[in-house]
Order: sequence, then C-alpha cells, then structure tokens
Amino acid sequence: MIASFKNTLFINLDTESWPGKHLSPINRLLMTIVLISVFSVILETEQKFTDIYQSYFDVANSFFLYIFTIEYVARFWVIGLRPEYGGIRGRLRYLISPFSIIDLISIVPFWFSFGSEWLLIRILRLLRILKLARIPGLSSALKGIQRAISRRRFELYISIGLAVFMMLLAAISLYITERDIQPDAFGSIPRALWWGMATLTTVGYGDVYLISMLGKIFAGIFAFSGIGLVAMPTGILAAALSDSFQKNEDDTSAAE
Amino acid sequence: MIASFKNTLFINLDTESWPGKHLSPINRLLMTIVLISVFSVILETEQKFTDIYQSYFDVANSFFLYIFTIEYVARFWVIGLRPEYGGIRGRLRYLISPFSIIDLISIVPFWFSFGSEWLLIRILRLLRILKLARIPGLSSALKGIQRAISRRRFELYISIGLAVFMMLLAAISLYITERDIQPDAFGSIPRALWWGMATLTTVGYGDVYLISMLGKIFAGIFAFSGIGLVAMPTGILAAALSDSFQKNEDDTSAAE
Amino acid sequence: MIASFKNTLFINLDTESWPGKHLSPINRLLMTIVLISVFSVILETEQKFTDIYQSYFDVANSFFLYIFTIEYVARFWVIGLRPEYGGIRGRLRYLISPFSIIDLISIVPFWFSFGSEWLLIRILRLLRILKLARIPGLSSALKGIQRAISRRRFELYISIGLAVFMMLLAAISLYITERDIQPDAFGSIPRALWWGMATLTTVGYGDVYLISMLGKIFAGIFAFSGIGLVAMPTGILAAALSDSFQKNEDDTSAAE
Amino acid sequence: MIASFKNTLFINLDTESWPGKHLSPINRLLMTIVLISVFSVILETEQKFTDIYQSYFDVANSFFLYIFTIEYVARFWVIGLRPEYGGIRGRLRYLISPFSIIDLISIVPFWFSFGSEWLLIRILRLLRILKLARIPGLSSALKGIQRAISRRRFELYISIGLAVFMMLLAAISLYITERDIQPDAFGSIPRALWWGMATLTTVGYGDVYLISMLGKIFAGIFAFSGIGLVAMPTGILAAALSDSFQKNEDDTSAAE
Repeated sequence: MIASFKNTLFINLDTESWPGKHLSPINRLLMTIVLISVFSVILETEQKFTDIYQSYFDVANSFFLYIFTIEYVARFWVIGLRPEYGGIRGRLRYLISPFSIIDLISIVPFWFSFGSEWLLIRILRLLRILKLARIPGLSSALKGIQRAISRRRFELYISIGLAVFMMLLAAISLYITERDIQPDAFGSIPRALWWGMATLTTVGYGDVYLISMLGKIFAGIFAFSGIGLVAMPTGILAAALSDSFQKNEDDTSAAE
Repeated sequence: MIASFKNTLFINLDTESWPGKHLSPINRLLMTIVLISVFSVILETEQKFTDIYQSYFDVANSFFLYIFTIEYVARFWVIGLRPEYGGIRGRLRYLISPFSIIDLISIVPFWFSFGSEWLLIRILRLLRILKLARIPGLSSALKGIQRAISRRRFELYISIGLAVFMMLLAAISLYITERDIQPDAFGSIPRALWWGMATLTTVGYGDVYLISMLGKIFAGIFAFSGIGLVAMPTGILAAALSDSFQKNEDDTSAAE
Repeated sequence: MIASFKNTLFINLDTESWPGKHLSPINRLLMTIVLISVFSVILETEQKFTDIYQSYFDVANSFFLYIFTIEYVARFWVIGLRPEYGGIRGRLRYLISPFSIIDLISIVPFWFSFGSEWLLIRILRLLRILKLARIPGLSSALKGIQRAISRRRFELYISIGLAVFMMLLAAISLYITERDIQPDAFGSIPRALWWGMATLTTVGYGDVYLISMLGKIFAGIFAFSGIGLVAMPTGILAAALSDSFQKNEDDTSAAE
Repeated sequence: MIASFKNTLFINLDTESWPGKHLSPINRLLMTIVLISVFSVILETEQKFTDIYQSYFDVANSFFLYIFTIEYVARFWVIGLRPEYGGIRGRLRYLISPFSIIDLISIVPFWFSFGSEWLLIRILRLLRILKLARIPGLSSALKGIQRAISRRRFELYISIGLAVFMMLLAAISLYITERDIQPDAFGSIPRALWWGMATLTTVGYGDVYLISMLGKIFAGIFAFSGIGLVAMPTGILAAALSDSFQKNEDDTSAAE
C-alpha cells in the first residue's frame, strides 16, 4: 500500500511522469504557493507593510517553510522511481541537480533565522516557475522562439552591435557639443552615455536634456534613429518567428 | 399597418436582420448619440465645464435619457420578431441578455436622480459600441486577430512571463544597488517595481531615476532589454497575423 | 524656335512628361528651392535669428518670391501642351487644380506684404513635395503601402478602437483612484486622459505620475498594455506589407 | 624559416586568408584589446576616474600604443603576401587603404603627446570592429539585412518623409496653439520642433509639455500618430526581412 501511495505521489509530483496535458493538481497548488511566497517576500521588503502586518508575515513565512520542507522531503523520497535517479548514486545526482539545490537553498537558512538579510534568497524560488516549461504547449512554443532566435542570431548580434555603436556615437557627439554647458550631465562620455541610453531606448527620463541648439539637433537625430533600433530587432524577430511557425506547420502537414 | 411598421422598425434596429453591409441608418444615428452621450459624460466630470455649461449638460442629459428610454421600449417591443426571443419566456430571456441589461442600467437610475455619483454608470453605454462587431468586415477582421492570438497564446504567455520576470529582476537589482541612496524610491521591492515598470515599458516618467554609477549601468541594461520586451510580442503578433491572413486567403482561393 | 524652347521647358517642368526615371534637373532644382524656402520660413519664426539675420531673410524672401513667380508663369505658359489643359477652358481648369492653387497662394500675398501673419502660408509650399509621388519607384512603393493599409483597414480600425477604449478605461480608473489625492491631474476624466495618453503611447512626459499604491498598480497595468497597443498595429502592418510585397512579386513573376 | 614565420603571421593576421570559420586567435586577441582600449578612453574622459587612477591610465595608454604600433608594423610587413598589395606600389596602395589609415591615426599622434585633445581620435579604433563583418555568419546576415533594406528603400523613404512631415505638422500646430502661453518652449517653430521630436519618437523627456486644453488635444493626437511612425518602418523591415530570409532559403534549397 505504501508502494502504491509512493507511486501516486511520484506521478503527481514529477512533471514529466504526469500523463495529463497540464500540471498535476498537486504541482498546480505548489506553483501557486511558490507565487504567493514570492509575492509575500516582495511585500515584506516594504517597511510600511511590516510595520502593520509583521505577525502575518511571520505566520506566512513559517507556513511556507513547512510546506517547502515537506515538498523537499517528499520529492527526495519518490524521485528514486525515476530510473536516472535510482539507487544511492542517483539520489546524490538528484541532490546536486539545479532545481534540487534551489529548493534546498530556499529552505535551509530559514530553519535557523528569518533575518531580513536572507529575504532575497527566497525569491530564488521564482526560478521554480521554470518547471512550467515542461508543459507540452509552452515547451513547443519555447522551442519555436528559441529556434527562431538561434537561426537569426547573427542578425540580432548586428542589431545589438549597431545599438551599442549608436549609443557611443550619441554620447560622444553630445559630450563634444554640450560638455561645457552642462558639465554635470555631459562632462564625460560615461555621463553622456546615461543620456544616450535614455534617448535611444526612448525611455526619456527627462533628468537630462539638451539646452544648446546644436545639442538639440543631435538629440533629435539620435532619437529618430532610436526608432530604427527598436524596429530592427522587432523586424528580425517577426521575420524569424514567421519562418519558424511556417516551417513547423509544413512539418506537421508533411507528417499527416 | 402596425405590423408592417413593427417589422420595418425591427429590421432597422436589429443589427443582424439588416440586409445591408453596414449599419442601418437608425442604428448609425443611435451609435452616434451613444458616442456623444459618453463624450458628454466625460466632459461633465470636469468642473471647469459644469461651472459654465451646467444648463446645457442638464438639457443634454434629459435628451439622452428620453432617447435611450424610447430606444429601450422600442427594442423590447420588436424583439419578439426574432424567433429566440418570441413569447413571454423569450422576452424574459431578452431582458437578462447582457446588452439589454446595459441598456437598462444606463437609463433607470436617471429617472430618479442625476447625481454625479451615477455619472460613471452612463459610461457603460460605451460597451454598446461592441455591437459594431457584427458588421461583416469588422467581424471577420476580429476573428482573424482572435485566431492569430489564440493560436500563438503560448508564445504570448512566454513573452508576458519574461516581461514580469525582467521587471522583478530589474526591481530587485536596483533595490539592492540603490536602496540606501534613494530609500524613498528604491527602499523596497514594491517601490523599485514602479521604476522597473516605467523603464521596461519605456514610458520613463522621470519621477525616479538612478544616481549611483552601478545603478545607472543596471538601468541601461534593463532599458535595452525593454526593447526586447516590446520586440517579442510584436514579432509574435506580426508572425501570427501574417499566418492568419495567408491561411484566410488560401481558403478563399480554394473556395473559388 | 520659341515652340521648341516651349516644348523643352514643358518636358522639363511637367513631371509626368519627363522620360527619365528620376526628376528632371529643373524640377530637382525647384524641389531643393522649395525645401530651402520652407526651412527658411521655419527659421524666420525664431526671433533669435531674425534679430541678427533679418536682412538675409528679406533677401531670401524676395529671391524665393521671384523664383516661384517665374515658375508659376512658366508653368502656366507651357501647360497648354498637355491635352487636358489645352485651350482657354483647359487653362482655367489648370488654374483651379490643387497644386496650381497652392503655387498661387504661396506667392500672391507676398507681392503686397511680408508681414509675419502670412509666414505660415508659405509652409504650404511643402505640399508641393507631394509631386515626388510621381517618381516611379516611390509611386509603386506608395501604392504597395496604401494597398496593404486599405486591405487590412478593419484590423487597423480595431486596434485604434482598442487604443481609444484602453485610454478611456485608464483615465476612468485613475480618475476614480486618484482624484482626491491629485485633483489637479486626475480631478476629471479629461484631465486623467492627458496622463492616460502619455502612458499608453509610452511617451511618459512625467509632468503627471501616480502617488497612491493602487494608482501605481493601475498605471503599471496600463503601461504594459501600452506595449500591446504598439505591438498590434505594428504586427498588422508587418503582416499586411509582407502580404502585399509577396503578391506584387508573384504578379511580376507571372508576367515574366 | 623567416619566410615560414612570415607566412604563419600573415595567415593569422589577415582575416580573409584565415581558413577557420571564426577569427584567428591573434585577431581575436587584438579585437579584445581594441575593445578594452576604447573602453579605457571612454573612462578616461571622466575626471572622477582620472583623479584616482591616472597612473593606471598612463600605463594602459603606453601598453596600447606599443601593441598597436607592433601590430601596424607586422601588418605592413606581411601584407605583401596578398597579391593585390605586393611590390612597392601595392604597399603604397595598402598604406592609403581606409583601415590602414585608421590604424595609423590611432597611433602616430600618441608617439608625441597624450594630451586629452587627442583622446577622441583613439575612439576611431572602434571602427576596426567593422573587420568582424568578414566572419562568414555575420557577413551573410549583414548582406541579408542590406538587401532587405535596399529592396524596400522607397518604402523606408516614405516612412521617413512621413515622420518629418508629421513632426513639422506637430510643431506648427503647437506653435500656433501655445506660442503665447509658453513662449520659451513654443515661441518659434524650431523650438516647437524640440517638443515634436520628443513626442513623436515617444522619448518624452518632459522638459516641455502642453498646458492649454487645445494643446493637450493636439499633443494626444500627435503622440498616437507617433505609434504609427514606429509601426510603419518596423512593419516594412519585418516584411522585407521575412522576404529576404525566405528567398535566401529557396536559393539554398534550389542549389541542393
């Protein structure tokens, strides 16, 4: 009977052994708890909240700790049913697998202390969301995107190189034009790069802007070329994905 | 003669029974009045206008109320000509249909009061614009977009997930880097998220920006990755729509 | 000999009668003068420049006036060689053609005065740049873009409609959330629309931003949906143009 | 033995003679040194750094000078092995080739002085990165992008023309609307262009924004049309690249 329970638990915990198209109910619950725990950690960094709700955070942290400890032990117990993790050597291999290490790191320190310095480590749990990548639909979508990006990586390198080059050019131009008028903002190329970045990405914080006529003309030219810097990777990605989608379909049709 | 008038009215009011390609003249007029009434409600929230034109707003509100009441009664009268809304049970089914409820909500409260607290309910009338989705051209365009989005929903989920992940990463990085220098803006992850959102979406309000060298370098990296966050869904949508348009055409050619 | 000169002048002035692929040398010169004259008008609005260079502007304005007057007379003289503008009735028809009227408006007032109130009328000359649309390469590119936009107009209407709807929704949400905290910026829907516009287009001036926690969360959601509002028309245009380019090519191949 | 060493050096230095797919180890090292030297020049413009690390910069500059001098001499020595640069005339032809001149400029002034006025010349070394364009993968990607842009250049001209036209229209509209309220920002068309540029590119510095109701409405319209200005070149590029990628593939399939 224990063997049967162990088996059921294994199928429910192991994403790849679950026969359904989506996640098993247990994994869906655990995923939700992971998300809530990350959300709770984020809120806990805000003093406004901890001032009022400290006791709730304490309860939540203990709750998450117990849940994730139980999960860790349970996974360790049933993982032996997967051939590659069978036996003592398999168990050791499982212990040093990335996800297992993340799971461990996100619980061990908290058995000893809940000091705020450990707070951020618990955000690492978010990485467990990556397990979702094993859901068939998401997995094939991810592969399609990866294939498109990898096939057109040289085109993307060029557009990144161009972006860096334009940013440097923008910074140097404005450094020459405006360094004497606004030494704080354009007194050196690294300083001018801050403006160049904000302009070429079209973020435009507005903490730094041009005053001189020539500087404004340069800024205008670089701001417009910023459109090109957005347009190029977008165009490459669109074309690459369009390619990748079509290929995928042709394969599907050919297989039918 | 009343039957004939009822029938004409029915054909003119019921979008799906109208034989033409566009909306019937009456529906076009009603659509225009809906738009004007929404526009009027928007203006009415501004005290500058109500201070001067209160009497005009009062007249307009009464006018809209009469028109929409007459429309409601007329629709209720003629809807019985549609088989699914025939008989008393059909009428009741019509009364609880979403559009009928919206129509009702946007008139009933105003028979009793025009208090500003009800003002916003009248904006719900805007939802009636959705009836436009029944025009053939718009309807097939809408279906094409929906099909493209639904076929590539996993790719879009991935790009949304990536966006959320990047925003969190940006907020955490800057929280660590800049929390001691600007506690007001980066003193907690929720606060840093506000900056992360403004940067990754390239909105860049400029109420918060980085001061430290390391913070600026981080900000630059995240601002550039913001370009990718715009490029990815755009590329996916472009590829999916291109696919969807082509398929549609192949079907049309095959049918010819 | 006059007839031969008139004919040469006609061929050189009339874009459609010129046998070459590009513009005739005379038209190229005139186009350059138009651009310079528009540029000069723009500079003339800036008092900093007129304070110093008023005499230059006066010379330039007289020069442009003589050139455009001569051009107008010359065009009127030779246009009779085009069959549709032959005879007195043809000449009259030419006089009321849009380009001829623009040409006339941009000279007549200046024979009497150069007052600054007429300044902007001269910018209308820029519309003459539209004549460039008759160059074969540009003309077919323009047709391709027009065809793509016109074929997918319903999809574009939907994305415009969605943008307006989102902007209204953003304004209403923030009006409700923040009107008591920032009455100046969010005290009415028209005021909140200013913020909504700046956020959804990702312009983000930063003159208005959110203070309350709930307001910031709303702002974040709308800022991210702003990415979608950019992505949708871009995707539609990309797909439509891709379609249009391919079709054009198939036609060319079929014709070969 | 010297001949053999010269030959090995030649193959290692000359990008096109190297048989491998990537750069030769020596060229990779030199490329890295170029990047580091550019990075060092950028940092050297910031007084904060030179105040503390001046001695390090001095050492680095001498190091870069020796390395690039040795490289220059070595390249000059071995280049004779390439047929087109053989003999004295070939050597002279090499000396006046663009890359050779850049190499020379980036060393000669510094044998005499390291004054900060020469600082920027050393950034020219960055142009040597362009030699990377000879790597097969990058080179074919670059050709694909160039072909796509060149084939659709008229479409891109149109979108640039439209952008300039819209910017002018925006500036003129706001100049008329707001010149009396904000003479500093909208008192002339050149001034209004600064705002128009920031809005249409969606940079939105926020140093200038609209105050009057009519101005805000105009601003909103132009901000939304800014989306179109981004969407159009992106769509054109996406479609052109999609075309270019597909054609490339068809050629490859046909060749097989």
